[in-house]
Amino acid sequence: MVGDLILNLDEITGPEFLKKLDNKELILLAKDIRKSIIDVVSTKGGHLSSNLGVVELTIALHTVFNAPKDKIIFDVGHQSYTHKILTGRYNEFKNSLRDFKGISGYQKIKESEYDCYEAGHSSTSISAACGFLKAQEINLENNEIIAVIGDSSITSGLALEGLNNLSSIKGKVIIVLNDNGMAISRPVGGVSKTFSKIRSSITYTSTKNRFRKILSKIPFGAKIYVFLRYLKNSIRRLFIETTLFENFNLDYIGPIDGHNIKKMIKAFNVAKNSHKSIVVHVVTKKGFGYKPAEDDKYGKWHGVEKFDVFTGEFSTSNEENSISWSEAIANIVHEFMIRDSKIVTITPAMIEGSKLSKIFRDFSNRSIDVGISEEHAFTMSGSMYLGGLHPYISIYSTFLQRAYDEVCHDVARMNLPLVVGVDRAGIVGKDGDTHQGIFDVAFLKTIPNTIIAMPKDYDDAKKLYEIAFQYKNLFFIRYPRGKTKIESDEDKNNVYIGKWDLFESNASSNLNIIVTGPNFDIVRKKLSKEKIDSNLVFARFYKPIDKDVLKKICDNGKTIIVYDIYSTKEGLYDSICEYMIENKYNSKVINLSVPTDFIQHGNIDEILISLNLSIDDLVKIAKGELK
Amino acid sequence: MVGDLILNLDEITGPEFLKKLDNKELILLAKDIRKSIIDVVSTKGGHLSSNLGVVELTIALHTVFNAPKDKIIFDVGHQSYTHKILTGRYNEFKNSLRDFKGISGYQKIKESEYDCYEAGHSSTSISAACGFLKAQEINLENNEIIAVIGDSSITSGLALEGLNNLSSIKGKVIIVLNDNGMAISRPVGGVSKTFSKIRSSITYTSTKNRFRKILSKIPFGAKIYVFLRYLKNSIRRLFIETTLFENFNLDYIGPIDGHNIKKMIKAFNVAKNSHKSIVVHVVTKKGFGYKPAEDDKYGKWHGVEKFDVFTGEFSTSNEENSISWSEAIANIVHEFMIRDSKIVTITPAMIEGSKLSKIFRDFSNRSIDVGISEEHAFTMSGSMYLGGLHPYISIYSTFLQRAYDEVCHDVARMNLPLVVGVDRAGIVGKDGDTHQGIFDVAFLKTIPNTIIAMPKDYDDAKKLYEIAFQYKNLFFIRYPRGKTKIESDEDKNNVYIGKWDLFESNASSNLNIIVTGPNFDIVRKKLSKEKIDSNLVFARFYKPIDKDVLKKICDNGKTIIVYDIYSTKEGLYDSICEYMIENKYNSKVINLSVPTDFIQHGNIDEILISLNLSIDDLVKIAKGELK
Repeated sequence: MVGDLILNLDEITGPEFLKKLDNKELILLAKDIRKSIIDVVSTKGGHLSSNLGVVELTIALHTVFNAPKDKIIFDVGHQSYTHKILTGRYNEFKNSLRDFKGISGYQKIKESEYDCYEAGHSSTSISAACGFLKAQEINLENNEIIAVIGDSSITSGLALEGLNNLSSIKGKVIIVLNDNGMAISRPVGGVSKTFSKIRSSITYTSTKNRFRKILSKIPFGAKIYVFLRYLKNSIRRLFIETTLFENFNLDYIGPIDGHNIKKMIKAFNVAKNSHKSIVVHVVTKKGFGYKPAEDDKYGKWHGVEKFDVFTGEFSTSNEENSISWSEAIANIVHEFMIRDSKIVTITPAMIEGSKLSKIFRDFSNRSIDVGISEEHAFTMSGSMYLGGLHPYISIYSTFLQRAYDEVCHDVARMNLPLVVGVDRAGIVGKDGDTHQGIFDVAFLKTIPNTIIAMPKDYDDAKKLYEIAFQYKNLFFIRYPRGKTKIESDEDKNNVYIGKWDLFESNASSNLNIIVTGPNFDIVRKKLSKEKIDSNLVFARFYKPIDKDVLKKICDNGKTIIVYDIYSTKEGLYDSICEYMIENKYNSKVINLSVPTDFIQHGNIDEILISLNLSIDDLVKIAKGELK
Repeated sequence: MVGDLILNLDEITGPEFLKKLDNKELILLAKDIRKSIIDVVSTKGGHLSSNLGVVELTIALHTVFNAPKDKIIFDVGHQSYTHKILTGRYNEFKNSLRDFKGISGYQKIKESEYDCYEAGHSSTSISAACGFLKAQEINLENNEIIAVIGDSSITSGLALEGLNNLSSIKGKVIIVLNDNGMAISRPVGGVSKTFSKIRSSITYTSTKNRFRKILSKIPFGAKIYVFLRYLKNSIRRLFIETTLFENFNLDYIGPIDGHNIKKMIKAFNVAKNSHKSIVVHVVTKKGFGYKPAEDDKYGKWHGVEKFDVFTGEFSTSNEENSISWSEAIANIVHEFMIRDSKIVTITPAMIEGSKLSKIFRDFSNRSIDVGISEEHAFTMSGSMYLGGLHPYISIYSTFLQRAYDEVCHDVARMNLPLVVGVDRAGIVGKDGDTHQGIFDVAFLKTIPNTIIAMPKDYDDAKKLYEIAFQYKNLFFIRYPRGKTKIESDEDKNNVYIGKWDLFESNASSNLNIIVTGPNFDIVRKKLSKEKIDSNLVFARFYKPIDKDVLKKICDNGKTIIVYDIYSTKEGLYDSICEYMIENKYNSKVINLSVPTDFIQHGNIDEILISLNLSIDDLVKIAKGELK
């Protein structure tokens, strides 16, 4: 530890020691933790800005409350690095953050008794707190329950449902509103305007000083009461007449400087003494303490790969002619938006993640960031189509889950032909089980009126978007995390709805291999290198499937390998089984799909190897079949 | 028409005539429409209370606005009967409400140009309004967009996401908050407390009179301005300092008597002249004008079967020893709650629909109505389990769709063994395509760690709940709309996870029939009556499937009929195909599952016949196979 404290970070076994430290020592501790976060994330990648923003907040929480008896829930969990360090996980954090079988980037119940809850999707913490509160009521327990939630996460539907329900439950939850005015990139919507009104209406520090003067003049017993009254009748009125939270029948104090440990400790003690659920509004700065991240307005420093601490430059391997799939797809959509003035792009808070900044810059009128509102994104897009536009929704596979009902009831049911780009389809790697994009095909294909496709390369993707924007069905185009080559290609195959590509063996091979997505090119090269002769199929569409191609390869009676590293077996494999039973085929079929399971974090290649889904696994199996 | 007007209800072709009527005539019209709604619903069933509540409101809307150019969106749509009558659909309403191929009980785009949007699930109207508004902005149109939404629907996550996003879009939406303080049964949550504070804080009629006096003293031009200022600075402050809606950065006027057409016309004109999105808060009485419905506190008169207008008694056919499935399941859960003090029942606003009143009465501390918050229900229940309770969620199949992500990410991912009763599974009949409970098996089975079962009768259901509450997996028990016999049965088969019942033919039949759910007993009796000999299987579990039974019937090589009237083919049929391919069976399999489609409204039997899924269809096919 750099400071003057007795403990080094790796000597921390739990947060109890904090109660013995004075304010100066706590500040030094914050400095050390901040440095360690920057160091570790710069070498391993991870969530930087959100974690730097809550160092002091987390220290103040663990100083006032008694975890694990008291339950501290970090919404999403991607800001829990300080929490992990303070609860005895510094070495694991330093050595294995987000590594395969290493420590998770989120809270994990199995990782520590201090992680009472876990998530990865946003806005679950208030509902989780409600559940713990109800359990305490029935079990006659009386510990503190604290939900730490960001100003954007709190505007998502689930969080607002939780807020609405909270006051109906006996007892108290403390909601710490971590207001950095940022969300992942910028805040949107009416509520965020209210928050910014509160933030800007006074310089809260000076108000706090006024409050301190009042406090110093009265005896201790009355202090708390006066503090509350003061906040209720004075400060609050200064800011805004009735806060959002009082409309939800909750108490409110704040705003409080989220980098001033002393002030937060005071506020949390007030909240601890309250008998009613209360919101403590804390204002933090995302990326605090690391200049490039502090200055970031677009979320570039939200989740990062390795970087150089000194220069602030990312050490991404720049393969020639390669760009990320997100960027490739954004470029394609950008081109279509030039050609068709009815196309509008909608994203639920993923401008940076899905590389949409260029679209938002060039078509500010035809691009909408709805915030963390996946449900609203789909319902709104449906009526935009009815109103004469052609909406394009860009969304991560894992977050698309939030909108199942809206896809089904508000879009597919009325057969509204939106185009949806499904980013991060397949294994996503280091974010782990909460973020894998492996379930969408299975749940989308069972909704009527849907088309589901996945291109093999940039050129293929362009053609898919071409027909998607012409076609009159709800059209999902999936693409994975990672990079793709920008090829200046000669015109390859044409793309038709439901048509796969069949590359037949010249020598009537004993083997059929069906492959999905960008993995196809890797497979083709590898098979050629390994001299494995087969009828090779690129299954461009998950739905509808290509019955002509299937008939051909079923008719030859040989083994069929279904190699789909982007979806569970209920995606493509089951559709093939259904086709075969319907048509009375009984060729041997080998299923190499992602298992229907929650797959933990790690490097994508390591994960595929652990699932026996690597290209070498395919080669081994193929060779076995050809023997 | 009973009143003194020129038009009879069946002569109405569109709402334009309203503009020529004076207040007295509008009141008479309301009376006639109300009478007609009571008459039609008493003979055909339908949504009574919600429709009686908005007769005057709908008349006022169509008097002020110019549909179809102006877009009037009724949230859910189950309160659109007056709208249907005013837009030229009286005869269809009277003769075919909710009948097979008749007029829908909801708004339907295909039914009328006045139905600009359609739904069936709640809380979509604000998002839909946002979409229309954005389309108008880009298409340079400038019509009014009005969303009529209830005080409970507006507290659902989707609606709150819409509210939050609305102020970010240029132009204006008018939100008519139809506040009956009821939801389907009673209102819950912090926001509803705020609404009731507003309602009760003054007698709004007298305030309105004061406002009128001010208005009469100033010249016309300034009136609107003064009206708005008055509302903003005076009335509002009287009620509550800042309304919820201003926290969402929206304007607000109200509350206004929702049965006073004149006052509403005035308020809607103010809203029409506003340049900013505005909430008009209208207070109505659910069931207004029909005493039994007015007095109803539990939602008994929300959606009804035929009834006697004079006595207010329902003319349900009381089969001996029969109760509804909802009641049967509620009774079973009630028994378990007596035995196990850790069981807590959670419902999203369906106390009456799923017959949970007895549970809520006897276990007030261990039963929670979270309001229309399906997502919150699951996330909260997950942490209740972590807190040491054993939550039971009661939910309709169709509404379960809203919670896909919470089932997956917040419950199944952590393998939290909640028990979920899935009410209204299968075809639900007259509510139509928005309410069919046919997709849940397909989307639940592709989530890891789930068990999905459907009992054949009351006794079977008891046994399923017995193991569900013991088992350590997320356990879904589906049951249909309709009735079941209460049998005082001798102990039948034991029930084990994933085990089906096989009733083998004595004469090595040429046919295997797999049947699901309560339909099984009907099938068994019918087959016996028709002397159709087969190996009959009751598939109690959709997941896991019974591989031992499947092996037996596949080994005999004979045709297999999968007869599942409660789910699409992606539910059970596909799992059987997968099993057969995996095990290289190629028996002929006939799929008699619900088609993967949106199935329109009508009587359940009529729908099954139209889908070739009736018991007679099965008999015909079975006989064909045995020939």
